[in-house]
Amino acid sequence: MPTINVQLFEGRTLEQKRAFVEAVTKVTVETLGCSVNAVDIIFQDVKRENWATGGRFASDPPKA
Amino acid sequence: MPTINVQLFEGRTLEQKRAFVEAVTKVTVETLGCSVNAVDIIFQDVKRENWATGGRFASDPPKA
Amino acid sequence: MPTINVQLFEGRTLEQKRAFVEAVTKVTVETLGCSVNAVDIIFQDVKRENWATGGRFASDPPKA
Amino acid sequence: MPTINVQLFEGRTLEQKRAFVEAVTKVTVETLGCSVNAVDIIFQDVKRENWATGGRFASDPPKA
Amino acid sequence: MPTINVQLFEGRTLEQKRAFVEAVTKVTVETLGCSVNAVDIIFQDVKRENWATGGRFASDPPKA
Amino acid sequence: MPTINVQLFEGRTLEQKRAFVEAVTKVTVETLGCSVNAVDIIFQDVKRENWATGGRFASDPPKA
Repeated sequence: MPTINVQLFEGRTLEQKRAFVEAVTKVTVETLGCSVNAVDIIFQDVKRENWATGGRFASDPPKA
Repeated sequence: MPTINVQLFEGRTLEQKRAFVEAVTKVTVETLGCSVNAVDIIFQDVKRENWATGGRFASDPPKA
Repeated sequence: MPTINVQLFEGRTLEQKRAFVEAVTKVTVETLGCSVNAVDIIFQDVKRENWATGGRFASDPPKA
Repeated sequence: MPTINVQLFEGRTLEQKRAFVEAVTKVTVETLGCSVNAVDIIFQDVKRENWATGGRFASDPPKA
Repeated sequence: MPTINVQLFEGRTLEQKRAFVEAVTKVTVETLGCSVNAVDIIFQDVKRENWATGGRFASDPPKA
Repeated sequence: MPTINVQLFEGRTLEQKRAFVEAVTKVTVETLGCSVNAVDIIFQDVKRENWATGGRFASDPPKA
């Protein structure tokens, strides 16, 4: 523990994910009190046409 | 809030998902009492060979 | 299929959830093309002190 | 019920998943007391560059 | 890996869960090819009034 | 986006979670390139008798 599932739009690079992982792992150890090897982070890349907020897909053009 | 994760077989069209999103977002606002912009709906397309019910995959041929 | 997981703030009544379930089940059958018995809806009640948006917990007082 | 979500590295074959499904479905019925048709198992194949443990991605080369 | 999330009705005993865990862990190692210490199983106890199938809650009385 | 679900052992304080939320929200904005208000973090407190690793529950006494 902990297991951290991150749902995000697809398109982020491995470098972005690596920066996220390194910082979040460090913060998790410091704030939640666990060993570093216990931190699992799993990314779920979500297509913009699979994520809707307020009834509109993230792939929709912005409202005029 | 709320965040609604929908696991479904892959193959549904964006038009089907849009009809779902529009109706479910409306229903959510009406029944759960939240603002429309607070409703997140995330689809996870699942291959039929990744979903088993009763020990059989959805990709298996029907029993004779 | 489908399986619909709904994360929402705790405190909604069974009547609110029932209204949601009845409407969403109906919409799901109509838009995604599945049998009614295949629709699973699972609610996860989340305490407001377990949900943070933009760095603030839902249990925090509104900004002055 | 129950619904069992399995996050695993991509690359497992359908034969491996089938062996898992058959055994786990049987075990679930025996230990949790439910009907066989009530057991849903959903696999989520995760790329190794989307899973980090202890700050390192599963796609990283092992430490020297 | 893998991480196995199990959503089930609340009320199962620790003994039932232990029997499930021991058998599923063994099966996972045998079928998916991973080390035993890599197998995480997380139970999410769900109240029957939080799980609806086919538009009816698991807490509803059976149809007459 | 993103939505970050954190499964952790129950018992962490709101202060620990707040420190986690503040740091992770900041890191997320910096590394994934999103607006601060788009970051949702949801904690799921898991009892130690609901989490097993390597076939042993986190509530079990350590091996002799």
